[in-house]
Amino acid sequence: ARRGYPEAVYCEGKTPGQVAAIAAAVRDRPDVVTLFTRAGPEHATAVLGELPDAWHDADAALLAWPPQPPPPTGGLVVVVAAGTSDLPVAREAMQTARYLGRPTELVVDVGVAGLHRILAQLGLLRRARVVVVAAGMDGALPSVVAGLVAVPVVALPTSVGYGAAFDGLAALLAMLNACAPGVAVVNIDNGYGAGHLAAQIAAPPPAGDV
Amino acid sequence: ARRGYPEAVYCEGKTPGQVAAIAAAVRDRPDVVTLFTRAGPEHATAVLGELPDAWHDADAALLAWPPQPPPPTGGLVVVVAAGTSDLPVAREAMQTARYLGRPTELVVDVGVAGLHRILAQLGLLRRARVVVVAAGMDGALPSVVAGLVAVPVVALPTSVGYGAAFDGLAALLAMLNACAPGVAVVNIDNGYGAGHLAAQIAAPPPAGDV
Amino acid sequence: ARRGYPEAVYCEGKTPGQVAAIAAAVRDRPDVVTLFTRAGPEHATAVLGELPDAWHDADAALLAWPPQPPPPTGGLVVVVAAGTSDLPVAREAMQTARYLGRPTELVVDVGVAGLHRILAQLGLLRRARVVVVAAGMDGALPSVVAGLVAVPVVALPTSVGYGAAFDGLAALLAMLNACAPGVAVVNIDNGYGAGHLAAQIAAPPPAGDV
Amino acid sequence: ARRGYPEAVYCEGKTPGQVAAIAAAVRDRPDVVTLFTRAGPEHATAVLGELPDAWHDADAALLAWPPQPPPPTGGLVVVVAAGTSDLPVAREAMQTARYLGRPTELVVDVGVAGLHRILAQLGLLRRARVVVVAAGMDGALPSVVAGLVAVPVVALPTSVGYGAAFDGLAALLAMLNACAPGVAVVNIDNGYGAGHLAAQIAAPPPAGDV
Amino acid sequence: ARRGYPEAVYCEGKTPGQVAAIAAAVRDRPDVVTLFTRAGPEHATAVLGELPDAWHDADAALLAWPPQPPPPTGGLVVVVAAGTSDLPVAREAMQTARYLGRPTELVVDVGVAGLHRILAQLGLLRRARVVVVAAGMDGALPSVVAGLVAVPVVALPTSVGYGAAFDGLAALLAMLNACAPGVAVVNIDNGYGAGHLAAQIAAPPPAGDV
Amino acid sequence: ARRGYPEAVYCEGKTPGQVAAIAAAVRDRPDVVTLFTRAGPEHATAVLGELPDAWHDADAALLAWPPQPPPPTGGLVVVVAAGTSDLPVAREAMQTARYLGRPTELVVDVGVAGLHRILAQLGLLRRARVVVVAAGMDGALPSVVAGLVAVPVVALPTSVGYGAAFDGLAALLAMLNACAPGVAVVNIDNGYGAGHLAAQIAAPPPAGDV
Amino acid sequence: ARRGYPEAVYCEGKTPGQVAAIAAAVRDRPDVVTLFTRAGPEHATAVLGELPDAWHDADAALLAWPPQPPPPTGGLVVVVAAGTSDLPVAREAMQTARYLGRPTELVVDVGVAGLHRILAQLGLLRRARVVVVAAGMDGALPSVVAGLVAVPVVALPTSVGYGAAFDGLAALLAMLNACAPGVAVVNIDNGYGAGHLAAQIAAPPPAGDV
Amino acid sequence: ARRGYPEAVYCEGKTPGQVAAIAAAVRDRPDVVTLFTRAGPEHATAVLGELPDAWHDADAALLAWPPQPPPPTGGLVVVVAAGTSDLPVAREAMQTARYLGRPTELVVDVGVAGLHRILAQLGLLRRARVVVVAAGMDGALPSVVAGLVAVPVVALPTSVGYGAAFDGLAALLAMLNACAPGVAVVNIDNGYGAGHLAAQIAAPPPAGDV
Ligand SMILES: Nc1ncnc2c1ncn2[C@@H]1O[C@H](COP(=O)(O)O)[C@@H](O)[C@H]1O
Ligand SMILES: Nc1ncnc2c1ncn2[C@@H]1O[C@H](COP(=O)(O)O)[C@@H](O)[C@H]1O
Ligand SMILES: Nc1ncnc2c1ncn2[C@@H]1O[C@H](COP(=O)(O)O)[C@@H](O)[C@H]1O
Ligand SMILES: Nc1ncnc2c1ncn2[C@@H]1O[C@H](COP(=O)(O)O)[C@@H](O)[C@H]1O
Ligand SMILES: [Mg+2]
Ligand SMILES: [Mg+2]
Ligand SMILES: [Mg+2]
Ligand SMILES: [Mg+2]
Ligand SMILES: [Mg+2]
Ligand SMILES: [Mg+2]
Ligand SMILES: [Mg+2]
Ligand SMILES: [Mg+2]
Repeated sequence: ARRGYPEAVYCEGKTPGQVAAIAAAVRDRPDVVTLFTRAGPEHATAVLGELPDAWHDADAALLAWPPQPPPPTGGLVVVVAAGTSDLPVAREAMQTARYLGRPTELVVDVGVAGLHRILAQLGLLRRARVVVVAAGMDGALPSVVAGLVAVPVVALPTSVGYGAAFDGLAALLAMLNACAPGVAVVNIDNGYGAGHLAAQIAAPPPAGDV
Repeated sequence: ARRGYPEAVYCEGKTPGQVAAIAAAVRDRPDVVTLFTRAGPEHATAVLGELPDAWHDADAALLAWPPQPPPPTGGLVVVVAAGTSDLPVAREAMQTARYLGRPTELVVDVGVAGLHRILAQLGLLRRARVVVVAAGMDGALPSVVAGLVAVPVVALPTSVGYGAAFDGLAALLAMLNACAPGVAVVNIDNGYGAGHLAAQIAAPPPAGDV
Repeated sequence: ARRGYPEAVYCEGKTPGQVAAIAAAVRDRPDVVTLFTRAGPEHATAVLGELPDAWHDADAALLAWPPQPPPPTGGLVVVVAAGTSDLPVAREAMQTARYLGRPTELVVDVGVAGLHRILAQLGLLRRARVVVVAAGMDGALPSVVAGLVAVPVVALPTSVGYGAAFDGLAALLAMLNACAPGVAVVNIDNGYGAGHLAAQIAAPPPAGDV
Repeated sequence: ARRGYPEAVYCEGKTPGQVAAIAAAVRDRPDVVTLFTRAGPEHATAVLGELPDAWHDADAALLAWPPQPPPPTGGLVVVVAAGTSDLPVAREAMQTARYLGRPTELVVDVGVAGLHRILAQLGLLRRARVVVVAAGMDGALPSVVAGLVAVPVVALPTSVGYGAAFDGLAALLAMLNACAPGVAVVNIDNGYGAGHLAAQIAAPPPAGDV
Repeated sequence: ARRGYPEAVYCEGKTPGQVAAIAAAVRDRPDVVTLFTRAGPEHATAVLGELPDAWHDADAALLAWPPQPPPPTGGLVVVVAAGTSDLPVAREAMQTARYLGRPTELVVDVGVAGLHRILAQLGLLRRARVVVVAAGMDGALPSVVAGLVAVPVVALPTSVGYGAAFDGLAALLAMLNACAPGVAVVNIDNGYGAGHLAAQIAAPPPAGDV
Repeated sequence: ARRGYPEAVYCEGKTPGQVAAIAAAVRDRPDVVTLFTRAGPEHATAVLGELPDAWHDADAALLAWPPQPPPPTGGLVVVVAAGTSDLPVAREAMQTARYLGRPTELVVDVGVAGLHRILAQLGLLRRARVVVVAAGMDGALPSVVAGLVAVPVVALPTSVGYGAAFDGLAALLAMLNACAPGVAVVNIDNGYGAGHLAAQIAAPPPAGDV
Repeated sequence: ARRGYPEAVYCEGKTPGQVAAIAAAVRDRPDVVTLFTRAGPEHATAVLGELPDAWHDADAALLAWPPQPPPPTGGLVVVVAAGTSDLPVAREAMQTARYLGRPTELVVDVGVAGLHRILAQLGLLRRARVVVVAAGMDGALPSVVAGLVAVPVVALPTSVGYGAAFDGLAALLAMLNACAPGVAVVNIDNGYGAGHLAAQIAAPPPAGDV
Repeated sequence: ARRGYPEAVYCEGKTPGQVAAIAAAVRDRPDVVTLFTRAGPEHATAVLGELPDAWHDADAALLAWPPQPPPPTGGLVVVVAAGTSDLPVAREAMQTARYLGRPTELVVDVGVAGLHRILAQLGLLRRARVVVVAAGMDGALPSVVAGLVAVPVVALPTSVGYGAAFDGLAALLAMLNACAPGVAVVNIDNGYGAGHLAAQIAAPPPAGDV
């Protein structure tokens, strides 16, 4: 585990065979949490063949081993998904933070087209040490959330939307231009990166050795 | 006046001499409202030399002649500027709608980073037949406003913002991807176009001959 | 129904199972019109399994329930498709306006390469309260139509064309730069958005509560 | 003169001194037509210092020497400018064709927002062997003209327009996607290139040796 | 046939059924040449079911009916393909010109990486009234050919190349910036457009009524 | 002060007069820290005319009032500038964090072309609660720093570099694709945003009410 | 073999039949090394059907014939792959250099997120005459390597990464902006081009006639 | 001097005062060659004030100190400029290589529009160990040169050209897609980078310690 955090295996460019080999090697290191990200059905089968008790979130295309996350420490990570389509990426962020050892909460379907929905979550939002906001299309939600809370907001653009969304570019640009300060942007659809960053922001005071 | 609407003279690419010549020609047609858009100080001097009583809004870089707008008819056009930097473009939109004969209202500094500011205007917004929303940076305000009103929103992106605003591109893309329906997008910094469109949307029932 | 308008379910990112669940929930709310947009064959089957009498326009990838649109009120919405390839998106726009309660007309194959075709429709165009113009490739038709009518034109770029059409970007940019005023641009291939906006523009005088 | 056509000196990246040196060298070759393109006031002074009788079109930023163009041969080149702002580039195209030896005509202010203006020129357009169409903003005019004539149309995008014109990119893309066949596109604001191409298209039958 | 030229049916966005219907309608108009462009195997089957004797070039994805092209008139159209990968698009251009009534020649594998190959074709090139040059990757060949001939060059970018070719964008930009004058650019992979333009350039003197 | 943090006045789009008016209004609220960002010489003169004892960092184009920052609390914010050219933006970030109440350190000229320079700072880097990394050109430094520390890295792209830096776009994209996790990206040249975000990340445990 | 180097057959745009025909023709020229690049499984089968003893690296999608590379001469070519996902492209580069006659070494998984990994290879890197560095995502590795060695670095961007990697564009731009001098950039995923260039750089002193 | 090569001071973002301070510090280190790149007139005055005998090439915006370059060793670096506008950047490349200790030659005005010009230089080109090719517009020359020589070609795109050159982007993309192998691309207008890379490629066999 680099820098005291879990090891991540990015499956997308790998064959099931390569992923299985990594999973087999991992079996001997139960002290290190390993995350398999962007794991399609065949990747998942390959991992579960070697690590049958691995934890698997098919929606988030994520597996974790050992299956039990560390006991939660540090501040609360609240993950917010603007719409249902943003849910897979939001779940990946939430689970990543959980396996890095943070307490987490997930809120869905609170896009800016109906402000009452996000305002109804104000209590929860204000208990957070950091808020991850996943949104596609206009990417407007992080600006709104950052105006409501004093803690950092991790803005996670998703590739959801019609043509001129340009696969998440519109949301990405909007988030980089958030009109409220305190917004940290990550790559399009990069739930793992968002969750990792959030876990680091919400880490307990002695951040430990790198 | 093409289609019963004012004639517009786009000054930006023209010399003061060319603009003066047009102004002189206009003097003989007091029945037609003429707007001089994107008129810098030298353009304004040229117009006022020929039409001394022309109305001049230096902030909006706009002149109008005859100076008196038509009596207001049709629905209310509310123009909203997210921040002070969006004001020149917002004023251009508002004045254009006024000289096309609509009643207008202007609201400033209601960006989404402080939701209470736009929510405080809800009464006014709901009296509008159409709302023009000028915003730069993340271009998030039209989505929020469109979620608050049932009438069309004309989204007017401005070229305000840091590097990755790309001179209004970020706001433009965000607005094209507004997550609430009912958003009509116009070109970057095109206050004239936004005001014209809004005036057409709010036109009194018999739209008259084109 | 948010703001008094139909509820829309965007199917593209959803599984048939998710769509079926939404359709089942909708069954108990016949007072609200629900539109299922971007519904592929499997989505359609899922909806029709729950709502057998739903109205289905396969070309427009659209379903509506209850099947009967509201009685038409407000101004006429004319939808114009430049070419046959623009027809699915144009139909989506037209049906959306119809299910929002407007009278509608659809005109096809009136691209600017043969001006007589659009000029032959001048009578119909001038009866409209708003015209939706769907076009790909050069996106030139909205400029021409906006020059012919005094009412607003909703410009709907489609992703039709050879390489440098860049999936609708060329048409989108052209429409944002329309050389006639009064053009409202929406996202690429977003027939639903265009139809919704048009229905709002053509809404009967008392726009109703949002 | 390469390939039997005039020599062109592109002044934009050159100092007045460099341009003067070229002009001096040219003086000894009156048999070759030399064009100085993109010549600002200082470039013009430099050329006229060496070639006092050179022909100078300040609007087109062009000089020619010897001042007398060749006697016109070949087909008629009609140059069309959509708006007044497109005139400098259109003039550059027209003069280039004239100094390559073609008969030329220039038509201005015939944008597609008022179709009657271009339709009024149909007689002239149909006498042309080739039509050059200069337009900025939506770049729609070449599509319309190409639908009206059987001869090739040289589409010349100009950098005129609001923000999302992106300095001529919108017009360029529109022209590459012209929905009528027979459109030849050249670089943004490249009046010289358009005029040269038109002159080659309209060249008299025996095109001569290259 | 619009403007005296063949009718073109762009098959890409159409179902085989739609194409078959058009083919059936065409059967009654043997006086007009009809081209079916971008016709995949299923489109071809549909056309041949209605027009069994239609001419079919599978490589060019093109069908023509009546099968016999008009007797060749006008100047020679030489079509040049830089590499084997550019051949389908080049063939589409050549066949289009042939069915518009021009004499044609096709030359392949003459990319600029081996100059002797294009120089070996100088005799043929100099007999042309117009040269179509299809090239992907760096799009350099039109510049070289335009430097070798006095007639117009129609530059036809293809979507061939590694990542930074960006599906033909690199070649398109290179061609728009050709450093020799006399280059007419068309859309990426638009062989039909290139061939049509070339046929118009090489048309016999009395171009006929549009 | 929104959310308990300083008020920021973005001067770039404002006249000196407008800025002076804001400065005058601020004078009555010494309990709130106000930052004037992107303040050119004329803006600075305007502010200092109203608030003579305001603190001014001309390199960072920043003024603060009251001049004394709050006593430092929370974790250490280390700001790293890859090269001298990145210094103005890095200083803006550092001063912003300081006026939000954090202890800060600044390190310059530690680009990745000489790894020993950044490695020599490892002791300081590992004492940080958050590291801000300002870099232009290839934007590679945040990836390297994020690999060396366990705390979050705020990546701040600058518009420094040759042509294909595209005014900071290259650095921005590189940072969004950082190959080490834990990188939070902000807008190009947005030192204020980076410093604000860093101060929030390093805030003392009870973050206070928003 | 053009210029004394192997002949390359780029298979991607070719049918298996076309590739088989080329392979058959090659069989009679054992004096020339032929490389089949971007050869998928069907291309490989086609080649091996004609040249059964051809050397095949399926990971690199490459075949070579005759199977035995030339005896190595010239300087050492070290190929470095930042991550496992960059391996196919890196192998293509390495094998190309080997079949052009160079001694080669391959190093994997030395990304900048863990500097110790690349620093552990310093001995090998400093024995190289040229280093090829394949990297996706942030494209940071070439800058780091170029700071460690005095010889040229061939930077080979790969299309690996999340959304804002834009299929290798982010890495490409980063490499073009490398903050250490001595970096030569090639096209995205173009392992053949990188290996060819490296072999030319490391060629033995008398480079031979072209 | 990092890695045994000259130290470079990139002046563009620096004040004359900062540059003068660096020049003063350099005075004490005559053993190291220092290059001041992108030095405008004021930068040059500042350098010459401290180092009066520094060598100055105003066209290349370059100064060097000590004024005498090292005695030339290694292979010949030939620098080719397609047109006169590319000369400043080409000179920067050539002088950089010279101050890194290579023998150099410069050739101008050999663009591909007149192939005889580059073919006339074949003798010189084939004596080179590396060829630097500076070109703007279509960026076609490196492809042609790489087809003529067996040694590496350093392709140096310049920002010369009309609108769709997009400040060198067109040439950059063309060069990345060169259809002949052996092309090494550097940043737009980066003459220093090109010359440095060329000097490394042409370095004498024992490349020396880094
Ligand atoms: N912002 C704008 N958007 C669209 N059309 C405009 C705009 N400003 C001016 N125009 C139109 O441009 C034409 C003026 O062109 P000109 O003859 O160059 O002054 C008029 O027909 C105006 O209606
Ligand atoms: N490559 C092309 N470029 C321009 N126009 C084309 C092209 N291919 C087909 N067309 C035109 O598109 C129209 C066919 O449209 P459709 O009715 O959809 O078949 C005809 O008018 C053709 O002339
Ligand atoms: N990645 C590449 N970069 C540059 N040239 C290439 C590349 N791959 C193949 N080639 C060249 O393309 C030609 C093969 O083209 P083809 O005749 O279509 O197989 C050969 O001359 C190769 O040297
Ligand atoms: N064109 C260039 N390409 C790459 N590196 C450069 C260039 N010009 C200067 N440098 C490097 O930039 C650094 C100078 O940065 P500075 O300290 O800001 O003067 C030195 O390490 C140079 O080697
Ligand atoms: Mg906040
Ligand atoms: Mg609404
Ligand atoms: Mg109109
Ligand atoms: Mg025509
Ligand atoms: Mg020529
Ligand atoms: Mg880290
Ligand atoms: Mg080095
Ligand atoms: Mg070569």
